[in-house]
Parts: sequence; C-alpha cells; structure tokens
Amino acid sequence: QLATVSKEGHAKVRTVVFRGWSDLDLSSSEAFKFITDLRSEKMSHGNIVEVCWYLTETREQFRIAGNLMYITKDAKEEKFVNERISTWKTVSEASQRSYFSPAPGQIVDQTPLVEPAAGALGNQSFPPDSFVVGLVDPFKIDYLHLRSPQVRKIWTKKEQGEWEGQNVNP
Amino acid sequence: QLATVSKEGHAKVRTVVFRGWSDLDLSSSEAFKFITDLRSEKMSHGNIVEVCWYLTETREQFRIAGNLMYITKDAKEEKFVNERISTWKTVSEASQRSYFSPAPGQIVDQTPLVEPAAGALGNQSFPPDSFVVGLVDPFKIDYLHLRSPQVRKIWTKKEQGEWEGQNVNP
Repeated sequence: QLATVSKEGHAKVRTVVFRGWSDLDLSSSEAFKFITDLRSEKMSHGNIVEVCWYLTETREQFRIAGNLMYITKDAKEEKFVNERISTWKTVSEASQRSYFSPAPGQIVDQTPLVEPAAGALGNQSFPPDSFVVGLVDPFKIDYLHLRSPQVRKIWTKKEQGEWEGQNVNP
Repeated sequence: QLATVSKEGHAKVRTVVFRGWSDLDLSSSEAFKFITDLRSEKMSHGNIVEVCWYLTETREQFRIAGNLMYITKDAKEEKFVNERISTWKTVSEASQRSYFSPAPGQIVDQTPLVEPAAGALGNQSFPPDSFVVGLVDPFKIDYLHLRSPQVRKIWTKKEQGEWEGQNVNP
C-alpha cells in the first residue's frame, strides 16, 4: 500500500505491486520500486510518501517512509533511462496493455473501446510515454511484529547515510 | 490500511483492524470503525483520510475517502459515550491490555515493564482514558476489480447525502 498526499492536503492510499529494490544510487539505500501511469492522479501528489506492508502469515508490518521520485519519459540521465527500459521489459503483456488504454480515472467513454490486440502494442521492448517507474528512497522504517509480546523497532537514516535503530513501545 | 496526513504534510499509513460499520448518525452513511490509542501519533493528523482495502482472493480494491472523527474520553454526547463503551466490550483481553501499556512509539524504557496481570485491568466493562474509537464517514468510494477486463467505478456523495456512481477507466 502506497500512501500519498494530494495537492489539497488529503490522504490517499492504493495498492501497488512491489517491483523489487532498485540499486540506483539515489542515496545510500536501495529504493522500493513500483510502476504507474503518467496519467494517474498520484503523479501530482507530494513526494514524501509511506509504504505499508503487512505480512499476514508472520504478522509483521513494515512502514517505509521515503522520498518518492518518478522516472518518466523525460528522464535524461542514462541510468534512469535504462532503469525505465529494463523495468518495462519485466512487465506482463496484460499490464503493458493498460499503458495504451484510455487515461485511468477518466469517465468511461461511451464509444466502445477497441483494446489493442495482443502483439499490436508496438515495440514491446521500449516503453510508451505513459509508462513511469516510481522509486521510494527510504528515510525511516517502522517495524512491528504482532507476536506476544509485541516488538516494535524504528530505524532512521542519519545525515551521513547510516541507519540508527531504536526499540519503541508497540 | 488507513492513510492520514501528518502535521508536516507527510503521508502516513498503517494497518488497522476493521471493527464494523457504525450506524451512528454522522451523516447519511455508515462509518468505518476502528480503535486506537489516545497516545498514538495519528491523533494529531488531519481529518481527511483514506482507507484502502484489498481483497486478495477476489482481486477487488476499495478506496474509501472520508472524514475522520474520534470518540475520546472527552466525548459528551450520549450516543458517542455509549459507542465507546460498547466497542470496548468487544475488544479482546490481549488488545485491551495494550491500552494500559506504555505509550506507543516512545523509546522503550530501560526499566523492566511489568505487564498488568490478566484480570487486573480494572473494570473491564469500562474503557481506560487511552481508548479511542475512530470513525471514517465516507464521501467517496473508488472501487477497482482486477478481473479481465478490469472494472472501476467511483461513487461520490452529493450534498443532499445521496450517492452518485460513475464508471471510470481502470
């Protein structure tokens, strides 16, 4: 679950698929990677976000606060351009197709939508303009384990990039 | 998952347990009920929140945006006082115990913590000061069904209290 803040200052949260940890050198940590659509509402939201991960089986929760950056079609730096292309190649065809569909969140057009046929997506090794990679560069991790007794620990990133952990009350 | 906005304007999100729909007459809709601790950080956050519910098995997501109100120990109106008491009675003893524990999020005290023994929680039919009921009164519901083709529908509450639904692109 990825939480953001809208321009109006309202809380927003939705499910995103975790696409792995990116080792692009944003700061000293690996970044949480997800993908999204350039036309999605969250593109206009603030860049201090939080990811919440709850593992039902182990009853562990990770809250990862971080700075969000997007790699869009306008990325210039080679490492970002490459990350966007290589991530696109890992996306399933069904999911790739959504990036050629009408803009998410817009009222459904009454004219019947012709979905691009399989194999008609153009060059599948190169992402369309709508494809965006999101990276959350963490600065705080709040871990909670709902066993008995409960355990909660908060790690915070210091200015020099090293992490400091502290046990806190659950 | 409940998302809020901190005083600094940052996104925050954590797992909460759904405690049912409250039919207290907040507005024309039933409200999403959860419980929390008066000493938890989110008590200072903004009151426009979003709850995200993802049902893994059916691949359905509900995003419920709403106004959050808390029923604290200071509630005066009888219906709120009663709601707080009746909700407390539904809370498991293990969970009740946490409301008598040290403040959540604070650094763990080095002195060993003596947990209150079972049955030593005082009057278990009356909530301690730290017990708070949260109610999210919805004004917008964003529903997404990840079947093929995907379905997305947004309901918005109008001023007169009636709901209006619209199909939108996923």
